[in-house]
Amino acid sequence: MIIVLKREAAQSEIDHIVEKIKSTGLAVHISKGKERTIIGAIGDEGLLSNLPLETFPGVESVMPIMKPYKLVSREFRKEGTVIDISGVRIGEAELQVIAGPCSVENRDLLIDTAKKVKAAGAKILRGGAFKPRTSPYDFQGLGPEGLKLLAEARKETGLPIISELMDPRDTELMCDYVDIIQIGARNMQNFRLLTEVGKAGKPVLLKRGLSATIKEFLMSAEYIAAQGNANIILCERGMRTFETATRNTLDLSAVPVLKEETHLPVFVDPSHAVGRWALVAPLALAAVAVGADGLMIEVHSDPENALCDGAQSLKPAKFASLMQEVRKVAAAVGRTF
Amino acid sequence: MIIVLKREAAQSEIDHIVEKIKSTGLAVHISKGKERTIIGAIGDEGLLSNLPLETFPGVESVMPIMKPYKLVSREFRKEGTVIDISGVRIGEAELQVIAGPCSVENRDLLIDTAKKVKAAGAKILRGGAFKPRTSPYDFQGLGPEGLKLLAEARKETGLPIISELMDPRDTELMCDYVDIIQIGARNMQNFRLLTEVGKAGKPVLLKRGLSATIKEFLMSAEYIAAQGNANIILCERGMRTFETATRNTLDLSAVPVLKEETHLPVFVDPSHAVGRWALVAPLALAAVAVGADGLMIEVHSDPENALCDGAQSLKPAKFASLMQEVRKVAAAVGRTF
Amino acid sequence: MIIVLKREAAQSEIDHIVEKIKSTGLAVHISKGKERTIIGAIGDEGLLSNLPLETFPGVESVMPIMKPYKLVSREFRKEGTVIDISGVRIGEAELQVIAGPCSVENRDLLIDTAKKVKAAGAKILRGGAFKPRTSPYDFQGLGPEGLKLLAEARKETGLPIISELMDPRDTELMCDYVDIIQIGARNMQNFRLLTEVGKAGKPVLLKRGLSATIKEFLMSAEYIAAQGNANIILCERGMRTFETATRNTLDLSAVPVLKEETHLPVFVDPSHAVGRWALVAPLALAAVAVGADGLMIEVHSDPENALCDGAQSLKPAKFASLMQEVRKVAAAVGRTF
Amino acid sequence: MIIVLKREAAQSEIDHIVEKIKSTGLAVHISKGKERTIIGAIGDEGLLSNLPLETFPGVESVMPIMKPYKLVSREFRKEGTVIDISGVRIGEAELQVIAGPCSVENRDLLIDTAKKVKAAGAKILRGGAFKPRTSPYDFQGLGPEGLKLLAEARKETGLPIISELMDPRDTELMCDYVDIIQIGARNMQNFRLLTEVGKAGKPVLLKRGLSATIKEFLMSAEYIAAQGNANIILCERGMRTFETATRNTLDLSAVPVLKEETHLPVFVDPSHAVGRWALVAPLALAAVAVGADGLMIEVHSDPENALCDGAQSLKPAKFASLMQEVRKVAAAVGRTF
Repeated sequence: MIIVLKREAAQSEIDHIVEKIKSTGLAVHISKGKERTIIGAIGDEGLLSNLPLETFPGVESVMPIMKPYKLVSREFRKEGTVIDISGVRIGEAELQVIAGPCSVENRDLLIDTAKKVKAAGAKILRGGAFKPRTSPYDFQGLGPEGLKLLAEARKETGLPIISELMDPRDTELMCDYVDIIQIGARNMQNFRLLTEVGKAGKPVLLKRGLSATIKEFLMSAEYIAAQGNANIILCERGMRTFETATRNTLDLSAVPVLKEETHLPVFVDPSHAVGRWALVAPLALAAVAVGADGLMIEVHSDPENALCDGAQSLKPAKFASLMQEVRKVAAAVGRTF
Repeated sequence: MIIVLKREAAQSEIDHIVEKIKSTGLAVHISKGKERTIIGAIGDEGLLSNLPLETFPGVESVMPIMKPYKLVSREFRKEGTVIDISGVRIGEAELQVIAGPCSVENRDLLIDTAKKVKAAGAKILRGGAFKPRTSPYDFQGLGPEGLKLLAEARKETGLPIISELMDPRDTELMCDYVDIIQIGARNMQNFRLLTEVGKAGKPVLLKRGLSATIKEFLMSAEYIAAQGNANIILCERGMRTFETATRNTLDLSAVPVLKEETHLPVFVDPSHAVGRWALVAPLALAAVAVGADGLMIEVHSDPENALCDGAQSLKPAKFASLMQEVRKVAAAVGRTF
Repeated sequence: MIIVLKREAAQSEIDHIVEKIKSTGLAVHISKGKERTIIGAIGDEGLLSNLPLETFPGVESVMPIMKPYKLVSREFRKEGTVIDISGVRIGEAELQVIAGPCSVENRDLLIDTAKKVKAAGAKILRGGAFKPRTSPYDFQGLGPEGLKLLAEARKETGLPIISELMDPRDTELMCDYVDIIQIGARNMQNFRLLTEVGKAGKPVLLKRGLSATIKEFLMSAEYIAAQGNANIILCERGMRTFETATRNTLDLSAVPVLKEETHLPVFVDPSHAVGRWALVAPLALAAVAVGADGLMIEVHSDPENALCDGAQSLKPAKFASLMQEVRKVAAAVGRTF
Repeated sequence: MIIVLKREAAQSEIDHIVEKIKSTGLAVHISKGKERTIIGAIGDEGLLSNLPLETFPGVESVMPIMKPYKLVSREFRKEGTVIDISGVRIGEAELQVIAGPCSVENRDLLIDTAKKVKAAGAKILRGGAFKPRTSPYDFQGLGPEGLKLLAEARKETGLPIISELMDPRDTELMCDYVDIIQIGARNMQNFRLLTEVGKAGKPVLLKRGLSATIKEFLMSAEYIAAQGNANIILCERGMRTFETATRNTLDLSAVPVLKEETHLPVFVDPSHAVGRWALVAPLALAAVAVGADGLMIEVHSDPENALCDGAQSLKPAKFASLMQEVRKVAAAVGRTF
């Protein structure tokens, strides 16, 4: 930690700061420049997290030196994490695609969609049983019944399944059914839920919050990892900005930044980011080109009658043709699909 | 709902759209202009919420006419809601101030702070027992023990108490102790939690999410109201923007906009918005001037040793002097304090 | 234009609005629904641009039906515009790359860089003679001398040149030297400068402002087109958001949105968006995959000693290897390079 | 400047960095911690502005210690700057209000409005002669004729006048007429224009750009000051955020932050920020409460027929009643009006 002092800081103020830092067990290093005196606190910065140094008299600014995340950092683990979901390996050269409807609506539709996305190349089936909806008057998902249908679809197709967990009370139920637990963007800082899935030990796909910085995103992953669960897939799905032409702004720069900062695999969900199916294909290709380890895409056999997010769902034929293009771009950047 | 058609929309496309709208029970009104044909869907727009009209062939754009919130809207209820918390009336001409430490740390500190904020004019005591922290390695609050200390402080001072609920599993426990349940900014779209506090029936203070629009904020209040609980206090606490000079950007324009849109009382929390105690006082005064019904302010007797958010906490003496200034500004805008 | 009335709008208010709209020459269509009455103003919405209908008594909201841009819209011209810069054709299947140093610094360095970027596949040379710098104390460019050196580099290599215009007083000088005039992000709404380059008739590369919506971006292009100059290349270069891990957030969704909305070619500048050379390559590939017509990339033979933006400049060898990858991704999405 | 090295930085990399820093004339201080080695560059950081240290091999991050602005900083000049505009003193305890129409439209309307705002307490008259409009098809202002009318209004009322400069070629003309030159938000980083008004020596009101940080805002003021002109009034007028309920988000926190950072007076323009007249009054009062030195407010005798921004203009009677409220809030925070 670097503490920059005000030009007019009194010696008594400096002494007080030094004493406080030393009381946490850290060493102190003072450097007097022409314009400013700087105090370096040497050692584990976590020990200073409760010390509001920026408000101490005489302090101008405080700058951390270390990253706040540890277990998920690339520094902690050089090689990329590979997560094995019933034989589907995430985080290797092979790109993986998760596809399926926004919400599970009925058995036939789900199994039909599952078969079609599998045929097109998807290896994991998505489908919402519990749906976080902005309006209390909108369809909230089939609940446990939806999970059962997903399990049936898995049985029919062999595809592992992923579904979103919204409530810590559903963790056990969810673990009984799904292969990957999804934490949605709106729950990225629902710290209790993060702790629960950390304890549960199931692989987790963690979506980036709408206004979460990359640092906060990694801190939420750290919450899960701190419970001993390192099987975390990060998923960029668009951030909130001033632009209204798309529902959110997909931050593809986040992919290479995350690949530098963390050993965890990184997915991209273009469907939720853009909110309009015609834009999903170009952004899916861009996500592959920028280095994503996988994609998550909404596919619905009958978007006009979908109970949720029909506007952003691809029809199976369109999805299949997108997968052909994904294959080519993946090859162009040295990946397989 | 207004559906604007593309210039080249085919008659068959128009017929299909009209048929779909009619199938929901709404009436249809078609208006042919020089440049565009427009379809008006007349009746309850909620019936169209699952119809992804924007992706129908021939459609250029779709514009809702009605607001998506009902129970919390000013249209639903003209006069402002007044919430009575053990005699403290929120939503009338008298401004109300909630004050106290970020987190409950120990009995003596809490009761000392409670007495001081009461003496200065605060009518409700705040204190976190469960703390949502960005880092899993930071102090997470005293939990149930913290609630007990809050209850003791209430007994000592007579001040009603407010504390944050993070987990639906703690709802009953929380209801046993506090007078107002706080839903934090990070949980503004934790829809399960909203539903729980709606059912619990306790007064709720709902903080605006960091990147929530005013419309989304009101939809979250609608979640609570839809369960029959209309005792909701809205609280602006700063939004996420590109500016880093303050922790968040306090959106004071939201106050008069909310007063137009909803009958619910509106509070402002300047402490979390700015993140630095020296800025709390001017923004608290601005919040009063702009028309807030109350303030929520962090006060700590010993900020240097606070376990949480010491940087933004006022010392009791500074808080007392701020209350003097609040009194003057409140009088200037026709309110009492 | 759709005008939604308040539920309680009085007949006299409605009459007043109708009369006002008719006075502009537009026709009026009234539709009474259960909850709201709606007035449609039929005809050229531009005639209403000075009428502040949203503040008329009885009005709840006003919604334009038409896009505010005309000449640059895809509706105005279905086929894509192709711009020929001394034989380099922009807007066709062949991807074009503009490369070169941030600022022109000296003859040898410029010509050396020009030769190297040409060898790697770039068809146009960039170089700043006038530099918009955040600080008045930073290097402001060589000015006219820089333009002369660019012209020499063109002579040596045959590459057409592009440079940024900052001041309407330099328009003529700039036209004497460069093949394409660049308007920088900070001047995207410098309307006088837009009008000048519109009149000058030279091809223009217009960068999107840091906080400009796509609609505003197109309105700025409309300013140029309204003067009779339709040779406009749009360039996405990153927007301002809350994320600080990259200098700006590259909005690649803007590319397919722009391709829908306008017939103008769309370029992407990843260098300024990310601000760090290690991130330029993946984002350049993503830009190609998402459908950009070309790239603009900073290349410097000696970034450590660059007078400007060294941090984001690729060395020639790195640039050459990126061009190899660009070639593969371009082929994968059906383009040549 | 603090340079944080990567854990694995090689000695040769460290030596290279040290040598480079020393070559600029700065001293170097090395501090080896347990986790990281840190290099401090001691002396004038401006000398490092062209050195892209963040991309040197072995470097993890670079943190400046000093603020980039000098002449406008509070450190450079402790006491607040007071600007005298023909006897109207800006920056003292007396609050000053600038009012008038968005654009000058005709003589009678302007003089009528001028007399009325003067009667209500405004001391300076605003009016646009050159208007920056998003659409090339909207009214662009009366130009020089507008300046003449403003001068007539000054003669009639004695009020000094302010108008916006958009083009460096109009600087001399503008100086002949107005008492304060306004630089609009869209031109805040039009560095040529800043340099011109710096040279011209007239008092300048500089509006904050829509997406400018406070640091960038002050750097733009520094551009003017660097030319020897320190008569600069800063004006917050709303920033661009995701919220669409108001046109922009007024950042009132910026006022106390600016008062800490700079000795220049700070105004607030609520009219442009909110874009709707009904919200102007509460935000004007909040601006006074938060510590602004003055307000800039749009007033129009006939907003329905205004050629520009009628929606946000107050009628004179409403303005007069707002000034009564401003007087009370000003008194409450220890200012006169």
